Amino acid sequence: MARDAKYDVLFEPVKIGPKTLRNRFYQVPHCIGAGSEKPGMQAYHRGIKAEGGWAACCTEYCSISPESDDTMRVSARIWDDGDIQNLSVMCQRLHQFGALAGIELWYGGPHAPCHESRDTPRGPSQIASEFEANIYPRYADKDDIKLLQQYYVDAAIRAREAGFDIIYVYGAHSYLPLQFLSPWSNKRTDEYGGSFENRARFWRESLEKVREAVGDDCAIASRFAVDSLYGPAGVELEKDGIRFVEYCDDLVDLWDFTVGDIAEWGQNAGPSRFFEENHEKPYSGVIKPGNHTNKPVVGVGRVTSPDTMIAIINSGQFDLIGAARPSISDPFLPKKIEEGRLDDIRECIGCNQCISRWEIGGPPMVCTQNATAGEEYRRGWHPERFHRAKNADKSVLVVGAGPAGMECAQILGKREMSAVHLIEALPDIGGNVNWVSTLGFSDGHPNIFRGTARGLGDWKRVVNYRQIQLDKLRNVEVHTNSRLDAAQAREYGAEIIVVATGCYWATDGLNSATHDTIPGVDAVGQEWQLTPEDVALDRKPIGRRVLVLDNEAYFMGVTLAQKLAGEGHEVYLLTHRGDIAKYMEYTLEAPMMHRELHRLHVHLHPETMIERVEPGVVHAYNVWDPTAKERFEVDTLVLCTARVSDDALFRELKDDPAALEANEVEAVYIIGDASAPRMMVDCIFDGHRLAREIDSPNPALPLPFIRERRLWGLVDNKVYDAVLASSDLQPMGA
Amino acid sequence: MARDAKYDVLFEPVKIGPKTLRNRFYQVPHCIGAGSEKPGMQAYHRGIKAEGGWAACCTEYCSISPESDDTMRVSARIWDDGDIQNLSVMCQRLHQFGALAGIELWYGGPHAPCHESRDTPRGPSQIASEFEANIYPRYADKDDIKLLQQYYVDAAIRAREAGFDIIYVYGAHSYLPLQFLSPWSNKRTDEYGGSFENRARFWRESLEKVREAVGDDCAIASRFAVDSLYGPAGVELEKDGIRFVEYCDDLVDLWDFTVGDIAEWGQNAGPSRFFEENHEKPYSGVIKPGNHTNKPVVGVGRVTSPDTMIAIINSGQFDLIGAARPSISDPFLPKKIEEGRLDDIRECIGCNQCISRWEIGGPPMVCTQNATAGEEYRRGWHPERFHRAKNADKSVLVVGAGPAGMECAQILGKREMSAVHLIEALPDIGGNVNWVSTLGFSDGHPNIFRGTARGLGDWKRVVNYRQIQLDKLRNVEVHTNSRLDAAQAREYGAEIIVVATGCYWATDGLNSATHDTIPGVDAVGQEWQLTPEDVALDRKPIGRRVLVLDNEAYFMGVTLAQKLAGEGHEVYLLTHRGDIAKYMEYTLEAPMMHRELHRLHVHLHPETMIERVEPGVVHAYNVWDPTAKERFEVDTLVLCTARVSDDALFRELKDDPAALEANEVEAVYIIGDASAPRMMVDCIFDGHRLAREIDSPNPALPLPFIRERRLWGLVDNKVYDAVLASSDLQPMGA
Repeated sequence: MARDAKYDVLFEPVKIGPKTLRNRFYQVPHCIGAGSEKPGMQAYHRGIKAEGGWAACCTEYCSISPESDDTMRVSARIWDDGDIQNLSVMCQRLHQFGALAGIELWYGGPHAPCHESRDTPRGPSQIASEFEANIYPRYADKDDIKLLQQYYVDAAIRAREAGFDIIYVYGAHSYLPLQFLSPWSNKRTDEYGGSFENRARFWRESLEKVREAVGDDCAIASRFAVDSLYGPAGVELEKDGIRFVEYCDDLVDLWDFTVGDIAEWGQNAGPSRFFEENHEKPYSGVIKPGNHTNKPVVGVGRVTSPDTMIAIINSGQFDLIGAARPSISDPFLPKKIEEGRLDDIRECIGCNQCISRWEIGGPPMVCTQNATAGEEYRRGWHPERFHRAKNADKSVLVVGAGPAGMECAQILGKREMSAVHLIEALPDIGGNVNWVSTLGFSDGHPNIFRGTARGLGDWKRVVNYRQIQLDKLRNVEVHTNSRLDAAQAREYGAEIIVVATGCYWATDGLNSATHDTIPGVDAVGQEWQLTPEDVALDRKPIGRRVLVLDNEAYFMGVTLAQKLAGEGHEVYLLTHRGDIAKYMEYTLEAPMMHRELHRLHVHLHPETMIERVEPGVVHAYNVWDPTAKERFEVDTLVLCTARVSDDALFRELKDDPAALEANEVEAVYIIGDASAPRMMVDCIFDGHRLAREIDSPNPALPLPFIRERRLWGLVDNKVYDAVLASSDLQPMGA
Repeated sequence: MARDAKYDVLFEPVKIGPKTLRNRFYQVPHCIGAGSEKPGMQAYHRGIKAEGGWAACCTEYCSISPESDDTMRVSARIWDDGDIQNLSVMCQRLHQFGALAGIELWYGGPHAPCHESRDTPRGPSQIASEFEANIYPRYADKDDIKLLQQYYVDAAIRAREAGFDIIYVYGAHSYLPLQFLSPWSNKRTDEYGGSFENRARFWRESLEKVREAVGDDCAIASRFAVDSLYGPAGVELEKDGIRFVEYCDDLVDLWDFTVGDIAEWGQNAGPSRFFEENHEKPYSGVIKPGNHTNKPVVGVGRVTSPDTMIAIINSGQFDLIGAARPSISDPFLPKKIEEGRLDDIRECIGCNQCISRWEIGGPPMVCTQNATAGEEYRRGWHPERFHRAKNADKSVLVVGAGPAGMECAQILGKREMSAVHLIEALPDIGGNVNWVSTLGFSDGHPNIFRGTARGLGDWKRVVNYRQIQLDKLRNVEVHTNSRLDAAQAREYGAEIIVVATGCYWATDGLNSATHDTIPGVDAVGQEWQLTPEDVALDRKPIGRRVLVLDNEAYFMGVTLAQKLAGEGHEVYLLTHRGDIAKYMEYTLEAPMMHRELHRLHVHLHPETMIERVEPGVVHAYNVWDPTAKERFEVDTLVLCTARVSDDALFRELKDDPAALEANEVEAVYIIGDASAPRMMVDCIFDGHRLAREIDSPNPALPLPFIRERRLWGLVDNKVYDAVLASSDLQPMGA
């Protein structure tokens, strides 16, 4: 199918300095957990996007010196020849598929704790990081400033050697160049502080020097937060923001605009709960229309709709469609538009699980929608290409059409299994996503900071995409309103059964804090006690005063508190933890949610656990002083204490092997929440993994994956032994 | 000098199964951040201890399956041939120095989030981890139990192949075998749950199988928390604790006893603030004296005193002196006792910085006392051996005898510089340690949980050790009561000047939360406003109602709040963060400190920042809703807002190069807090680093260190490419 001509504009080439982008799709720098240490992951993850049609892909932030070491978080690094060697693999891979390679040169100042290098970061003024705990920079005097600028130059020269086409001087997200520009971080009184020109001097000089060094061979880009969202204390769009673009416009070949800082970079990587598509337009989107630059501009905003894309280009908002999350969710987004396959686009849901793993520090990136993200190299998974299974002659029954079951059935279908039947007890496929995506609260009231509470509606894309794919697969049948018991499943006629029956919320108060149930809790028998499902599905009336107990620390407890408070209830939120919704700090949803809870006057009780419940009364205690009791008289109790796998069907099937054999069922597997409750991203992965490996020797156990690590004894020892020879230590065997 | 004969008992060999320990010094398993991924660091860090006289050194916890993946934290792994290869380097290195190698086989169940492997952990019952956020195990049925036990067996066989002498089935710290044993985690109703024998069955069978597989060749050890400190809900010493030892005594060659769980393992790795030497004696120390075992026993308790060690052996408490932290702080502890060099022992201060980096996840281990810990391989630093500096003919003036200055002078002395003068303005060397170590509060009241508030007195060991070393060095002179100005420093006669003048607490409210000062704050001019130094040194009177503002989030704010509340003041603790003393979670001090603050009725105000101050009144606001104001009427305001480098001397020296030249000063360096405020561990590292590299081409910039990483293009590609060839992805270049 050919594409609609209205999308042609997206496929026009764009010149940036000495390089040309083949179209307007541009993967802006974003983290994946590969850095320079996992060259295979780096090369293959970016390479898949090149194959999928993106005109350029960039590294994540790439450190230019051990003084800028972000460990525990994973950045790329271009410190030495080994890094050149490792990053060159990514460049080769991108070039192989016709895309340009970009590198984002990064110096974090006090935001880089240097826990691996143990070095001391430098900064414009000595103020500890607002993002890190207790990391102070060393004041950069003028010699230091020259040194820092030389770091950028040296790194740029190394980057050119590695094969990069686009070289960033990265100042967004509150990193060094912005620290100089912003009066929030720059309190200097010399010619690098005070006036606009003085504060802009460091960045301008750095751009000049990098351009001088590599500008003939490489395009020079700069990533700039056009408003740091601190009001007059920082960089404001209408003041220094626009002015800086005009001031340095001659020095860049490409502008990459963002908004906000690092401590709250959910303002940039906006979670769908608070920000809709193209949400940065009021900031990054006004520079080009205002004629403040003559250079190409790329910006982001979790844009997945081709119509929004053409509106952005046609309105002159940006020249390039920048993407981080949409490119992770669907690396083939450009190709699918190009080929007119719009319904195949796997749209980002804005849950920010990808970001969560960077925030946690260390793990590879994950994606809820795209289970192959980060798995391209180490497991050899391609997002769009599937081997016919070796046992494709078998038929498979998948019981339960939640995220895990839908994904498993879809991939089994694409692997050409002879027949795949996806059976769902409820009227619709989607599992818990169907009610979870109705949650949240949206009164149109702007958040105290920025953005607007929207709810979790975009999460429904998980179902929409899979519904479309399942419909297209001729070897897959979906049957809803059909609940199978063990005998029916056995006798269904399938040789392989996959159980994906999900989980349910505990009704007895079982929780991770006490590893026990809670006396008096009974959400089955007690009308005033509700599980999250009860709330979402309006199963029971809800009184004026509501107490929500959250022992999970992800989205459910706070989401229900927000919803109920927004609907006018007086809400008390209790959690045994010291912080509210801990995992949402990793998804960048926490700060906005804190503001929502305050705005809606939710009463917060961290470090508090329920001891026992009587009708209308909840007895609680402080976890650090159990003698300190608190008593809550409430009308309704909402219990987000724990989830429990619904594995009854699996157990019944497994416990009767004779019956399975009699029905010629060769294997029974269990996936997703039915195996162990987990986050949606992991449910989909689990279903995908089983389908990818349905023809392995033992599909119940994952195959090994490639671990990119040093293997002692190979020739690389020579590299290391040379260093040791001159040390105070005797080398091995000496 | 020969050792006192009373210590001879420490050097008796001890037989454990088929192996013999050469003496009683035993490095129990502990984390260092090397795992199996950094074989050089693993081998050389453990190897240094073997060289230093330890009879055995163990890995950190070592995962037996991708189902037990602790990423972001770094564990060892013995999953495949690559791990065998990498861990064998450690075994070789230990054997080279006459020590045995131990491996701690680990399966974490729900405490292992599997963020790298994306696998699903199994556990006895499906209750989410109390340590992790939101990680649920999959219920292990009987097939799963066989599988889990086979993981232990397979891992043990691999470990034997790698060269390990001692193989642990690790159940302490709430990991899998203890999860089965403890009713806290085990709610099963089959033969693996309920009665003691049923709950102990998993562990006993695992020991049997591992012994069957490798017991003829290797010593079988088990690490067991004899009391999980949950009362009747868990394992209690007098109930299941002693009973389990008796029940499995026939199956082990060595018992390694601990106490407590993983969520609060500071009860085991007790910070000195709350626990004194040999603090586990009431638990792990009663098993052997009670004749409940016939096997050798090792236990820990941050024991650094040789007299405590012989008391432990002679009283029959343990057979072996187990050590994690004392062996990090001084890898040569056994040798120093053996050689009668007791005053050279570098005693652990119990600050738990070593542990903090494991908790953060990713970074290499650090040690306050021993700057070479973790640096043995990557920087080639030996803790006791020093190259004569190439420029040893030069003389060095070190200005400031705080942690950085003391360490730098000491190492410069050991590197045989012609003359090293350490000059201190105050009457004593030690810098801020001298007053910091007087802080804390000790009323002898037992903590609500366990332990007793003791204060930071053990931190003074940082000074004591260095004082002794400096006294011994003939080329080092220490001068106190001597404050040098720039002219005096220049004219002192030294060719190299090292400025280590430390930092001071801001008196104007400068802080990381607002990047600004606080209106009305002036700890210089206002008698009722105090810095931490003012409090510690009794410089100003303190009123009844005290407000402590903590923007640093490490120990200072809470320590002062604890002290002042303990002394009878009414204390309000404000911090802009959501959690109190965040970094103390990493040092395992936080839970005990929370209980102290509650016990002493400190009023806690997280998420709260000061807006402005008027005489006797502090105006504050909630950081998530700045319109929500709070007003505190107090008599005293204590300001732990930020520290500021005292770099005036350095600036003055550096800004007048002509004067330096005129005085034949060749170089001026700045280290420690004077360069940028940091934690003590990093101050000492900074001083050590400069001294180690004083003869490098540019000592101001650290030399590169070995980064153990895969380097693309070496023969290891062949290993990986084979995997990719069978995938859905085309290999590079195909």
